[in-house]
Amino acid sequence: MEYRVDVRPLGAQLVSSSEEDLLTTFHSAGIGVESICGGIGSCAKCRIHILEGMTSDPTPQEEDQLSAEQLARGVRLACQVHPESDLSIYIPASSLTSEQKMQLDSELEVESPEPAVLSCELEVEIPTAPGDPGSDLYRVEKALRATAPEVEIRSVDLAGLRGISPLLREGKGKVSALVRGKELLGLAPAGSFPLGLAVDLGSTKVALFLYDLSRGILIASRGFLNPQVPYGEDIVTRIQHAVEGGASQLQELVVQGINDNLSVMLAEIDRDRSDIYEMVLVGNTAMHHLFLALPVEQLGKSPYLPATDIPQEVKARDLGIELSAAAVVYLPPPIAGYVGSDHLAAVAAARLWERPGPCLLLDIGTNTEVALQTDGHIRSCSCASGPAFEGGGLSQGMRAGDGAVEGVSIDPGSGKAQLTVVGGAPPVGICGSGILGTLAALAAAGIIDSSGRIREGRPGTERRDKELVYYLVPAGEESTTGVAVTQNDIREIQKAKGAIRAGIDALMAEAGLGNEDLREIILAGAFGTYIDPAAALSIALLPPVALDRIKQVGNAAGAGARSMLLSIAIRRQAEELASRLEYLELSAYPGLSTLFAASMYLSEDAVREAKSRFRI
Amino acid sequence: MEYRVDVRPLGAQLVSSSEEDLLTTFHSAGIGVESICGGIGSCAKCRIHILEGMTSDPTPQEEDQLSAEQLARGVRLACQVHPESDLSIYIPASSLTSEQKMQLDSELEVESPEPAVLSCELEVEIPTAPGDPGSDLYRVEKALRATAPEVEIRSVDLAGLRGISPLLREGKGKVSALVRGKELLGLAPAGSFPLGLAVDLGSTKVALFLYDLSRGILIASRGFLNPQVPYGEDIVTRIQHAVEGGASQLQELVVQGINDNLSVMLAEIDRDRSDIYEMVLVGNTAMHHLFLALPVEQLGKSPYLPATDIPQEVKARDLGIELSAAAVVYLPPPIAGYVGSDHLAAVAAARLWERPGPCLLLDIGTNTEVALQTDGHIRSCSCASGPAFEGGGLSQGMRAGDGAVEGVSIDPGSGKAQLTVVGGAPPVGICGSGILGTLAALAAAGIIDSSGRIREGRPGTERRDKELVYYLVPAGEESTTGVAVTQNDIREIQKAKGAIRAGIDALMAEAGLGNEDLREIILAGAFGTYIDPAAALSIALLPPVALDRIKQVGNAAGAGARSMLLSIAIRRQAEELASRLEYLELSAYPGLSTLFAASMYLSEDAVREAKSRFRI
Repeated sequence: MEYRVDVRPLGAQLVSSSEEDLLTTFHSAGIGVESICGGIGSCAKCRIHILEGMTSDPTPQEEDQLSAEQLARGVRLACQVHPESDLSIYIPASSLTSEQKMQLDSELEVESPEPAVLSCELEVEIPTAPGDPGSDLYRVEKALRATAPEVEIRSVDLAGLRGISPLLREGKGKVSALVRGKELLGLAPAGSFPLGLAVDLGSTKVALFLYDLSRGILIASRGFLNPQVPYGEDIVTRIQHAVEGGASQLQELVVQGINDNLSVMLAEIDRDRSDIYEMVLVGNTAMHHLFLALPVEQLGKSPYLPATDIPQEVKARDLGIELSAAAVVYLPPPIAGYVGSDHLAAVAAARLWERPGPCLLLDIGTNTEVALQTDGHIRSCSCASGPAFEGGGLSQGMRAGDGAVEGVSIDPGSGKAQLTVVGGAPPVGICGSGILGTLAALAAAGIIDSSGRIREGRPGTERRDKELVYYLVPAGEESTTGVAVTQNDIREIQKAKGAIRAGIDALMAEAGLGNEDLREIILAGAFGTYIDPAAALSIALLPPVALDRIKQVGNAAGAGARSMLLSIAIRRQAEELASRLEYLELSAYPGLSTLFAASMYLSEDAVREAKSRFRI
Repeated sequence: MEYRVDVRPLGAQLVSSSEEDLLTTFHSAGIGVESICGGIGSCAKCRIHILEGMTSDPTPQEEDQLSAEQLARGVRLACQVHPESDLSIYIPASSLTSEQKMQLDSELEVESPEPAVLSCELEVEIPTAPGDPGSDLYRVEKALRATAPEVEIRSVDLAGLRGISPLLREGKGKVSALVRGKELLGLAPAGSFPLGLAVDLGSTKVALFLYDLSRGILIASRGFLNPQVPYGEDIVTRIQHAVEGGASQLQELVVQGINDNLSVMLAEIDRDRSDIYEMVLVGNTAMHHLFLALPVEQLGKSPYLPATDIPQEVKARDLGIELSAAAVVYLPPPIAGYVGSDHLAAVAAARLWERPGPCLLLDIGTNTEVALQTDGHIRSCSCASGPAFEGGGLSQGMRAGDGAVEGVSIDPGSGKAQLTVVGGAPPVGICGSGILGTLAALAAAGIIDSSGRIREGRPGTERRDKELVYYLVPAGEESTTGVAVTQNDIREIQKAKGAIRAGIDALMAEAGLGNEDLREIILAGAFGTYIDPAAALSIALLPPVALDRIKQVGNAAGAGARSMLLSIAIRRQAEELASRLEYLELSAYPGLSTLFAASMYLSEDAVREAKSRFRI
């Protein structure tokens, strides 16, 4: 018999047969699933989850390698299991070969999910004759105590309470109880699987990740543009809009955006929003405040005070987020006005506190958050790096769309540039990674000196309206206007890189560390993913470490939100971390301006020399 | 100098002078304030609260008799204090002579209020320069720890959190923090006094009591007709209306009724609903469920199961009750389908568990709740006494309005009745207390025998449409139709009294008690207030006790709601009581029908004789 096998999260549709084990099916289809033992069931590397459908019974090898609880949850070894109906299966990232993993980007791995919301299957007796006192809730609690003695109920959500009596009778006493901490959220029909939503609320992009909480499986994800963008590209403009009376509009926009995009996701997988019992949201402090409709006036002016810096749990209904009526939204704590819960989430995703330190984590953007871990202790700061790395304030800066220069090398002799352009289109401007690459290439080719000054008369340079410029693309050839970098552009980029490096050096100084002590640098976020670490080192954006000690981890904030959704242990660790994290307010840091001036130099030697000159 | 003295809760406006102590002022005005020592400051019976205005400093006698904390709250001795400005003062019921107390009905006494919501005055530092990290909330919590170290904040209400940053800045750091348990409800302008609302939600009447929580003072009260009445006079009809789709309508009606009547109360005393931080609501189980929009279908049919029997805390905003945005509604637990939190509240108000037992508490109505305390253990049941005591099902029954017969005595010789009629109007019907009185008078005059049969030929009786009737008021004299009691009326009243007595006897039997063991009977509720205890004893509605062992306490459910609003200790005691209270389901009680038959007899001897005949 042949059966269809729907493979998640890859989206592949395969055909298998009852004669064939699934590992063979995957390998025939070119899906790289790990197997060390060669398919004899002894290495347990090829674990998969059966989501739907019937399969052969577990083999003795599987019973050896997997716990009864894992088997009950549908975990199997691909090399041992044969289909006996059409199947829907899930391959966790840990079972994929590294090449396949890359495709999944920051697919998060949770071997044993430990979500805040638990589902317990109950059989509740419903009396039909008088004489046996006690309420419907009393009987649910009694059944719950028998099934899950570790659960202690202290309160019942009112919306959930309203559903108990009818659900008990509809299910003839067979129901799933949804419990979150000491709160009974309510009942659901027997066999329900609670879902959870992780949200990374960026100023520009919003990412939604929908999980099956019991199995820790990502079942859908979706990104969309933050609908607040028309009211301000940057945080400062958006805060101003809120202060001028637009606060509830901004809150409703993002809530509506989440609701609408969630609808699309749910329709695709045929699930209902009433199955979602928890949402975890991370974002910078302004996004966090605007989402909760907290006041932002005090956040928008010095000393940039957040209204709160503790974790917040809110009923989704209080925010207008449409999930299960009893659902809770959990927001990890912001750290400071310019260090948000997204930074905390990134630190949590990287498990920064467990890494051999001293190590740095950077999320580069208009504000660049930096965390330095040493001996398990974490210091953080926010650097006002400005929009230059996103193309802002530059004469030909642009976002990474078609025609954006993203990679640059310059021949020192001819001064001619070799470019990589997004979409292979004719070049029209320069995006973030191209900007950093241009600076490094100009310095390497000697067209600019270590102070950033364009050397007059070098090939490729010319004076335009009294200002020295360097043409990456001369006017008239591929592009009518050409693509140029002006002296002023270089200053703007230097300021951005100087602000970041000064923040790093201030944290290092606070920790009593020198450059030689640093063991690792983790680059998070979109910009950190795309830049060339060698270029970042060559212009002294980053302190000197061996190139292989720089790790690019992608959307760590989103990964952190997801790990906090799937693990209350990680959530507690992050909260605990937030309470002892040492925040360094750079604007009050003595000697920052001198440190900033030194940090603008474009080589490690020049930075060091400037520091000694300035007696830092 | 002469000053005006505004005396609450009596509403009196007096004139006093700085030469005169307030006790003298009260006595001159005829206000009965207790004084045993004759005004020398040694008995401390004349305690009053100074609400507003300036007075003489505390005397050494006052410092002796009152604690520093009491003096700080404005508690003074009337015999010692002299006005030094216009004053607003409050005389607690405990300081009033018993005559004056009667006027205040069930004015509740709380010497040291211990409300769930506390108000703490804070001075919070607001940094204006960078360098001092931490959020606005962090600084509030720090100030709170310094002012009230016993308070531990675990969560902050979102609505309250939204107000923190602006209120801190408006008040230049001086604010009141409102705390409920481990939740910070929010801030208010410095010097705010939180208010609390106690609600007794009856099927017919709703009573609202508004308190100053810090001082434990009643500042306003108001009663209104339950707006659900048009959808069913009784609970069964209202449940049916809810099941047929009217549930949300019934919920909204009562919420709107509370909101509207609260508005009227607040306007009278010039206070704002945003000052109210907690509401306590008691009611029978159907009222409780309909108020919370809980399902009632299962409550309306055997075995009459409540959806819940635990205490419920809900944000007022989740119910549509308009109080402070962060306010909480607390509902004590229902006991069973026909024993509600109003019964629990009555038990709490009477502090039944502390009284020397065995003792009974009854709230007589369509359903009569009975509680029996013995050795601190409490058993309760609900008796289906029906509407006869409210005039329902009787040929000339009516509510206690003008023309209702409320008191009856009958001359055994002439068979003529002497009546007390409400409003002194011509008699047109019989209300509850009159019905009970008529039955007792008929039995005492020998017009009916102990089985309730009308003796043919006795003066005042006649046959009408084949049925024997007795005329309280003969037709044609004061009333064209007359006011008569039919044999059928007597049977209906006997059924009501039999149901109650059977319930009492079942509880006594369960506790292994005989009539001779009973030490006290407490009659709560409107009916219990108006009936003649001697009549109730003579027809064996109540088991035999000395007449002075029967206490009539008025609206004990309302008093219980108020004591639970003002004291978390009483609230916890009531919750604890609810969890160990033994509920006896009479419909499943073996031999109930025999007990009921015996209990219909109209003298204690006849009841005893019937029981022995039935071998009970």
